[in-house]
Amino acid sequence: VIDGTGRVPISDGVVLIRDGRIAAVGVRGQVAIPPEALIIDGRGKYVIPGLMDANVHLVMRRNRVDVINRFEDLIEEAAQTALMYGQTTVFDTWGILEPLIRVRDRIRRGETEGSRIFVAGNCIGMAGPFVPGSPQEKEAGREAAAEVNRLSQLNTGPDLRFMTSDQVRTIIREYIHRGPDFLKYAASGHEEPDLIVFSEDVQRVIVDEGHRAGLTVQAHTTSNESLLMAVRAGVDLITHADVTGPVPIPVSTLALLKEKQIPCGFFPKTGRRWDIEIGGGSRTPGAKSRLTLESQRRNQEEMIKADIPLLINTDGGLWPPDLLALHPAEHWTDYEAIIGEGYFVRCRGMAEMGIPPMEIILAGTRNVARAYGLLDDLGTLEKGKLADLVILEADPLADIENLRRIAAVIKDGRVVERQRLPLKRIFYPGFRKVGS
Amino acid sequence: VIDGTGRVPISDGVVLIRDGRIAAVGVRGQVAIPPEALIIDGRGKYVIPGLMDANVHLVMRRNRVDVINRFEDLIEEAAQTALMYGQTTVFDTWGILEPLIRVRDRIRRGETEGSRIFVAGNCIGMAGPFVPGSPQEKEAGREAAAEVNRLSQLNTGPDLRFMTSDQVRTIIREYIHRGPDFLKYAASGHEEPDLIVFSEDVQRVIVDEGHRAGLTVQAHTTSNESLLMAVRAGVDLITHADVTGPVPIPVSTLALLKEKQIPCGFFPKTGRRWDIEIGGGSRTPGAKSRLTLESQRRNQEEMIKADIPLLINTDGGLWPPDLLALHPAEHWTDYEAIIGEGYFVRCRGMAEMGIPPMEIILAGTRNVARAYGLLDDLGTLEKGKLADLVILEADPLADIENLRRIAAVIKDGRVVERQRLPLKRIFYPGFRKVGS
Amino acid sequence: VIDGTGRVPISDGVVLIRDGRIAAVGVRGQVAIPPEALIIDGRGKYVIPGLMDANVHLVMRRNRVDVINRFEDLIEEAAQTALMYGQTTVFDTWGILEPLIRVRDRIRRGETEGSRIFVAGNCIGMAGPFVPGSPQEKEAGREAAAEVNRLSQLNTGPDLRFMTSDQVRTIIREYIHRGPDFLKYAASGHEEPDLIVFSEDVQRVIVDEGHRAGLTVQAHTTSNESLLMAVRAGVDLITHADVTGPVPIPVSTLALLKEKQIPCGFFPKTGRRWDIEIGGGSRTPGAKSRLTLESQRRNQEEMIKADIPLLINTDGGLWPPDLLALHPAEHWTDYEAIIGEGYFVRCRGMAEMGIPPMEIILAGTRNVARAYGLLDDLGTLEKGKLADLVILEADPLADIENLRRIAAVIKDGRVVERQRLPLKRIFYPGFRKVGS
Amino acid sequence: VIDGTGRVPISDGVVLIRDGRIAAVGVRGQVAIPPEALIIDGRGKYVIPGLMDANVHLVMRRNRVDVINRFEDLIEEAAQTALMYGQTTVFDTWGILEPLIRVRDRIRRGETEGSRIFVAGNCIGMAGPFVPGSPQEKEAGREAAAEVNRLSQLNTGPDLRFMTSDQVRTIIREYIHRGPDFLKYAASGHEEPDLIVFSEDVQRVIVDEGHRAGLTVQAHTTSNESLLMAVRAGVDLITHADVTGPVPIPVSTLALLKEKQIPCGFFPKTGRRWDIEIGGGSRTPGAKSRLTLESQRRNQEEMIKADIPLLINTDGGLWPPDLLALHPAEHWTDYEAIIGEGYFVRCRGMAEMGIPPMEIILAGTRNVARAYGLLDDLGTLEKGKLADLVILEADPLADIENLRRIAAVIKDGRVVERQRLPLKRIFYPGFRKVGS
Repeated sequence: VIDGTGRVPISDGVVLIRDGRIAAVGVRGQVAIPPEALIIDGRGKYVIPGLMDANVHLVMRRNRVDVINRFEDLIEEAAQTALMYGQTTVFDTWGILEPLIRVRDRIRRGETEGSRIFVAGNCIGMAGPFVPGSPQEKEAGREAAAEVNRLSQLNTGPDLRFMTSDQVRTIIREYIHRGPDFLKYAASGHEEPDLIVFSEDVQRVIVDEGHRAGLTVQAHTTSNESLLMAVRAGVDLITHADVTGPVPIPVSTLALLKEKQIPCGFFPKTGRRWDIEIGGGSRTPGAKSRLTLESQRRNQEEMIKADIPLLINTDGGLWPPDLLALHPAEHWTDYEAIIGEGYFVRCRGMAEMGIPPMEIILAGTRNVARAYGLLDDLGTLEKGKLADLVILEADPLADIENLRRIAAVIKDGRVVERQRLPLKRIFYPGFRKVGS
Repeated sequence: VIDGTGRVPISDGVVLIRDGRIAAVGVRGQVAIPPEALIIDGRGKYVIPGLMDANVHLVMRRNRVDVINRFEDLIEEAAQTALMYGQTTVFDTWGILEPLIRVRDRIRRGETEGSRIFVAGNCIGMAGPFVPGSPQEKEAGREAAAEVNRLSQLNTGPDLRFMTSDQVRTIIREYIHRGPDFLKYAASGHEEPDLIVFSEDVQRVIVDEGHRAGLTVQAHTTSNESLLMAVRAGVDLITHADVTGPVPIPVSTLALLKEKQIPCGFFPKTGRRWDIEIGGGSRTPGAKSRLTLESQRRNQEEMIKADIPLLINTDGGLWPPDLLALHPAEHWTDYEAIIGEGYFVRCRGMAEMGIPPMEIILAGTRNVARAYGLLDDLGTLEKGKLADLVILEADPLADIENLRRIAAVIKDGRVVERQRLPLKRIFYPGFRKVGS
Repeated sequence: VIDGTGRVPISDGVVLIRDGRIAAVGVRGQVAIPPEALIIDGRGKYVIPGLMDANVHLVMRRNRVDVINRFEDLIEEAAQTALMYGQTTVFDTWGILEPLIRVRDRIRRGETEGSRIFVAGNCIGMAGPFVPGSPQEKEAGREAAAEVNRLSQLNTGPDLRFMTSDQVRTIIREYIHRGPDFLKYAASGHEEPDLIVFSEDVQRVIVDEGHRAGLTVQAHTTSNESLLMAVRAGVDLITHADVTGPVPIPVSTLALLKEKQIPCGFFPKTGRRWDIEIGGGSRTPGAKSRLTLESQRRNQEEMIKADIPLLINTDGGLWPPDLLALHPAEHWTDYEAIIGEGYFVRCRGMAEMGIPPMEIILAGTRNVARAYGLLDDLGTLEKGKLADLVILEADPLADIENLRRIAAVIKDGRVVERQRLPLKRIFYPGFRKVGS
Repeated sequence: VIDGTGRVPISDGVVLIRDGRIAAVGVRGQVAIPPEALIIDGRGKYVIPGLMDANVHLVMRRNRVDVINRFEDLIEEAAQTALMYGQTTVFDTWGILEPLIRVRDRIRRGETEGSRIFVAGNCIGMAGPFVPGSPQEKEAGREAAAEVNRLSQLNTGPDLRFMTSDQVRTIIREYIHRGPDFLKYAASGHEEPDLIVFSEDVQRVIVDEGHRAGLTVQAHTTSNESLLMAVRAGVDLITHADVTGPVPIPVSTLALLKEKQIPCGFFPKTGRRWDIEIGGGSRTPGAKSRLTLESQRRNQEEMIKADIPLLINTDGGLWPPDLLALHPAEHWTDYEAIIGEGYFVRCRGMAEMGIPPMEIILAGTRNVARAYGLLDDLGTLEKGKLADLVILEADPLADIENLRRIAAVIKDGRVVERQRLPLKRIFYPGFRKVGS
C-alpha cells in the first residue's frame, strides 16, 4: 500500500472500506477485519490512491457542430474514459458550466458512471469558442454559435476587461451563485500580444470573492509578468507555471512560488516529445518558438529543483477520431493532452526529467487534493477519506510505467466495471496508445 | 495680444522679438521699441502664441507601398502643412524614429521649413505596421515589410510583453540613446482583448527610465484599468484619457487625474460629428460601439467639469488622396484626424462641449508646453520664450472659429511664407475643408 | 414602527415575535395574531430595531490593577450597561479575546444578561496595555503585567511588524482558530510617528485569511496613506475613517470609499463638543492639534456629503469612578466614549452635523449589521430576524434625542428587565449624564 | 597598481596624472611619460584608488551643546580625518544640509582640506535630534534646540507621514532645490514599532523626484517589509540591507536584490565583535536582540553568497572624547562607527566573513562610485577619472589589513599632507585604534 502521504509503503497491507470511505489502513493482522467484510484479494499487487488530474477539458473543440449538440454526452464519455484509466477525480478548468454541473451531479448521485468531476466553468475573461466571422461559426450557424459562446462565458467573458474592479466583483459574485466548484481566471490570454488580461486590483477581487465563498482560485498565465501578478494577487494555484514564452522564470519568482508553497501545474514531457517539438519533428519550429520551448523546459527543470509543490495535469480532452486520423503518428507520439492515456505519458515525462516515482505519485494524488483544498476527503489512503483506490499489477515505485498496469479501480468504495467503460461512445475510442 | 497665460488680453499690445525670442510683451508705449526694429503692423488684429498639437502622426498608413519609400518627404509635407495652419509645434506620438529625427533636425537647423517637431518614435510595446500574412505585406514584399516593422519597433515591439521589468529597463535605456524627445508606451493596445499591455512594475520602469533621462513619459490607454495603472505608474500625460470602452471613467480616477494635475489629451467632437458617429451616420454602429461612444462623450463632459488640464490633440496625419476620395463627404464631416485643418475642428468640438474660447487656446498652447515640460521655451508670449506667434484677422475669444482666419504665422521670430507651403507635395492637398 | 430598512414608518404597526425571532411585521389588522400571543401594548409609542454600536471597548484601562483581576466581571457590567440603554448588539473592536469570548458565550447561552457581543480580540499589530518600565507596570507587578500583555496580544502583537507576509499568514490563521467573530488590524498606530504598521502585502494577507474564514476584517487608520492602503487591501470596514491627522482626506479616497461602499465608523461631535476641543475648552490645544481637529471635522462633513455608508460607534467603555471624578464637568460635556449614554451624544452630534434622524437610525442599525455581514439576523425589523427592538415614548424622527426615552428593550424576543441592570456593579454608575 | 576594475593588478605600473585627472595607466615603458612630469617613486609599493565610504555621519551627537555651535568646524574635522586615513570620498547620509553644503563647497573650491563630500541632508521622514522634553533639549535651551531640529528637518521631517503622495512630491521638489547631492529617505524608522514610514506610493514619489533631478535615492530600512517596499519603489541603493530585526531576509528578496543589482550597504563585523555583541561582551543581550544579531549575521552571509553588489560603509562619525572615555575598552573593540579608523575594521570584518581582498577593495571603490552614479569620475584608476589614489607600503591583496599601511594619499592629483590633518581639532583625536 502506497498511501499517498509520502511515507514508506506498507507491505502486506490492508485497506478497510466502509460506506464508501476508508475505515482503516494498516498491516494485515493489525487491522481488525469485520466478519461481514467482502475481501478483494490483492496479494502480490500494489495499492495507490485514486489518481487525480488537476487540469482537464471534458469537452474539447467546442466549436464543432458534432460537439455543440452533445455536450453532456461528451462530458460523460470523457469522465468515464478518465475513470477507466484509474483517474477517480478530475478538475475541468475551462469548460461549459451548466452541462458540466449536470453531469457532475449525476455522477455524484450515482446515476451514471464517471470520474468525480470538479468544475470551474469559464476561464474568467476568456471568450467563448466561436470567433465571429470564422468558418466554424458559419458551419454551426450564427445563432447556435452565439448560444454556445453565451453558455461558455456566462457574463464572465472579455467584457470584464473593460470593467473596474468593483464592477468585476459584482459579476464574480453572481457567477459563484451558479455553482462552480472553484474559480479559474485568465491572468493572461493564450497568445501574444494578449499577455495580461486583468490588472492586479481586478485579479485580487476575483481571488477575494472566491475565497469569501470558500472556493480555490487558480490563474492561467503565459508570461512572467502575468505569473508574478497572479502570485501577488494571492491565487491558490497556477495552472501551468512553466509557460512563460521565450523568457525563463526569474529566480525571484521561483523563490516566491516556493515560499508561498503555491501548487503549480506544468507540462513536463518525455525526451522523445521534446525532440519532436524542439526540432526533430515533422515541422521545424521558428527561432522564436524554439526559444519558447527551451525556456519552458528550463522552467520545468528549475521548478523541480526549487521544491515547489507540483501537480499532474494533462490539459487533456477527448479527441474526435477525424482529428486523430488527420495527423501522422509522430504528431501524437508522447502527446499528453488526451484524457486517460495522456496521464501516463505525463508521468513518464516527469520521470525522464528526474522526478522520483514516489514524488510523481504524490503530484498526482495528495498534491492535487491539497491544492484544491480537498485533503479532508481525497488524495491519500487514510482513515475517513473517500475510498478511491487503484490496484496495480506491478510496483509503480520500481517503474512509473507500471501505473498502466491497472488490476482494478475502486471509487467511493465500489469496484469500477472498467471493461464496460465508457458507457457513452461518441468519440470512442477517442484516444490511442500515445507514447507507447 | 492673448499671451497664453490665461490673463486678460492686452489691447493695443506690442510683442518685441530679438534673435528668434520674445524680448518684451506689453502695451504700446510702455515697451521700448529699438529704432532698428522691423515692424509688423497688426493693428486691428489678434495675436496668440503659436498653436501646438499634442498628438499627431506625421506618417499615416505606414504599410502602403507609396509611403514606405518616402518617409522623410511625407514627414516634411505633414510638418509643413501643420505650420501653414498656424501649428508651430507638433508632437509625433507614434511614428518611425529615425526619419522623424532626421526631419526634426533639418527643420531645427533651418534647412527646411516646418512645424517644430518632437518625437517619441515607437509607442513602446506596439508592433510595426505590417501584419504578417496581410495583403499589405504581400504588396510591399516580405523583406521591405520586415524592414519597416524593424524601423518602427527598434527593439521596443511586442517582445517586451514577455520580459521582466529588469529586462525592459535595459531595453528602454538603449532606446533612449537613439534620441527620442519623449517616451510613449502602450499601457493598453488598441482593440479588445488587448487592453493591458504591461504590468504596473514594467510601466514604472519605463516611466523611471524616461525621467532619469529628463524625458516626459506618456501612456496610450483604452480602458479604465489601463488608465488607472498608468496614473499609478506616474506618467506625465495621458494621450487620450477619454477612451475607456463602454465603461465610463469612475469618479475616483477623475479625482486622481485632478489631484495629480495630469494633462490629458482627449477627443471632443462637434455635435454634428457625435450624431454621425453614434447613429445618424452612414453606418449604424453596433450596440456595443454605441455604448463605447456614449461612454467617451460622457468621459469628456466629466473631464471638462473636473478641472483636469486638457490638451488639444488631433491624432491627425496626412491622408492619401485615394483614401480621401474613397469615402462620401459625410465620412469626413467634422473629422479631426487630419493634420492642420483638423485642429480647428477639434477646437470647435471643444467649444460645442462648453469649453470657453480662452480655455481652448490655453489647451492648445500653454497646457501642451507644460505637459511636455517645455514651458521655459514655448506655450506663452512671455519674455525669453521662442517667438512663435499667430496673428489672426478676428477675435478668437469672440468665436473660436476665428482661429482659422490666420493673417500671419511667425516661428522662431520669422514670418512664415505660408503661401509656399507645403514645399513637399506628395499627398497634397492631403486634406479638405473638413467640417466647414 | 420604524423598521430600519429606510422605508416609510408603519403607523399603527404590529411586530409579531415567535421563538426569539420576528414572525411578521405589518399594519395592525393585516398581520394575523395568533390567539396565544402575549401582547405588549405599544399604542402611542415608537418601535425601532435594537440599537447597535459598531465600536466599543468593554474593558477600558486594561492596565489598572483593579481591572486586571476582574476582566470578565467588567465585560459583563459593560455589556449590561449597553443593553440597559437599548444597545442590543455591540462590537468590541480591541479587547482581551478569551474573557470576551467567555462572556459572549454566557450571554448567548442565556446564563447572564447583556448586549449581544461580537469580539475581535487584539487589534492585530498592537501591543498589550502595559508599557515596559511604566508606573502601571510597577504597580501591577511585572509578571501580572506580562500576563495581561500576553493575553491581549496572543501572538498578534508588534512582533508581526518584522515578519514577512507569509509568516503573518500563518499567525493569523492560528489566531482565527481561537474564535474571534471578526478581525481588526492596525493599518496605523495611534500616534505619530507610528502611522503605517503593515505593508499592503501584509494587510492583504490579513484580509484574505479573514475572508477565507468567513470573517469581516476592519482596519484602524490614523493617516491618509494608512487609510488608502487599507482600502486597497480590501477591508470590509474602517473603524474611524475621519481620523487622518492634520491633512484632510483627498477627494479621490472619498470617491473610493463611496464606489466600494465601504462602511466607515467616524466620530462626529456636537457643536458644543467641537467648541470645547478646538478652542473654547479648558485646555487650549497646540496649533497642530487644532489643525488635526479641524481636519477631522472637515472629513466628517465630506463623508456625510459623499454618500458613504456611515456607522454609529462610540469607541466607548465603562470609566472607573475615580477617573470620572478627576476631571471637571466640562471635560466630560458631550463626551461620547462612554458606553450606553455616549451613544445618544453621538447621535446628537450626527444630527447637529446635518444628518437626518432616519439616516442616524440606519447608521445605528441596518448599516452596522450590513457592515459586519449580519444582515440575515440583525439590523432591521423584518421577518425571520432576531427580535431585537427598542420601544420609545416619543418619535425619534421628530427629534433624535427621543432615542433616550426608552419605554422598553426587547432582545431575542424577551423584554429586558432594565431596572435591574447592570447586574455586575464594579464601576457602577460608571457613566454620568454626559452632554445632557 | 590595483586599478579598482577587478582586473589583474599591473606590476611595475605607472599612473600618469594631469590637471587633477588620470591621463594614463599602464605598465612602465608602455605609458609615455612627458619630460615635465613630477615623478612620485612608488617602487615596491601598491597603488589603489582612493577609498570611499558609502555611509558616514560627519556630525555625530547633534543634540550636544558643544556640537550645535560648531557644526561646520566638526564637519571639517571629520572630513579631514577621513582623508588622513585614505578615504578620499565620503557620503554623508544623514546630517544637517546647509553646513554640510558649505563645507562641501569649501573643500571643492580648495579653500580647505578634506575628503570629497557628498551630502543627503536629512533622512526624509526623520525628526531632528532633539526630543521634546528631553534633558538634552533642556540643556541646549528650547529655542536653540528647535532651531537645530528645523535645520535638520528642513520641512522633510515626520510631518510628511501624514501627507498624501502628491503633497510629498511638492515638498521633495522644494527640498531638492536646496542642493543635496543625493536623497535618502526613511523607509522605516530606527526602532520597533516604527518599522514602516511611508507607503509604497509615497516612496515612489520620492524616488521619482530624485531621479527627475538626476539624483540617486537610497532608503534606510530596518525590517523585511520596509526593505521589500523600498526595492519595489525603485531605490538605487539600500543603506544597510542586513538590518531586518529578528527575521532573516527571505530568499525571494535576496533574489530581487541580485536581479536588480541593487547596491547594498551592510555591517559585517569581525568574529571578535560578533562575540562581544552576541554574548561574550559586557552586557548580555536579551533573547530578542540576540535573535536580531544572529539574523543580521545570517543576512550578511547570504548577501555575500548571493552576488549582490556590496558597499563599504562604516556608519561612522567622530566621537567626543568624553564619550570615548565613558566606556571600557571592550565596548570599542572592533567598533566600526568611527570615521577613518573604522573603515579598516569594517574591511577586516568583511575578510573574516570570507570576502576576498580584491572584492573588499572593489566594495570600497568601484562599487560605491557606481552605486552613486559617479563612475565617470571616481572609483577606479582609469584614464579621465579624478586622480584619487592611495599608495600602500604592503600588498592589500595579501592581507586586507595592509590598507592601514598608507604611504601616501593623493586627491585630485595632489599629494595630501597627511601629517597636518586634521586641521580642525575639536574632538581630536576623536578616535582610537579600534580593533587593533
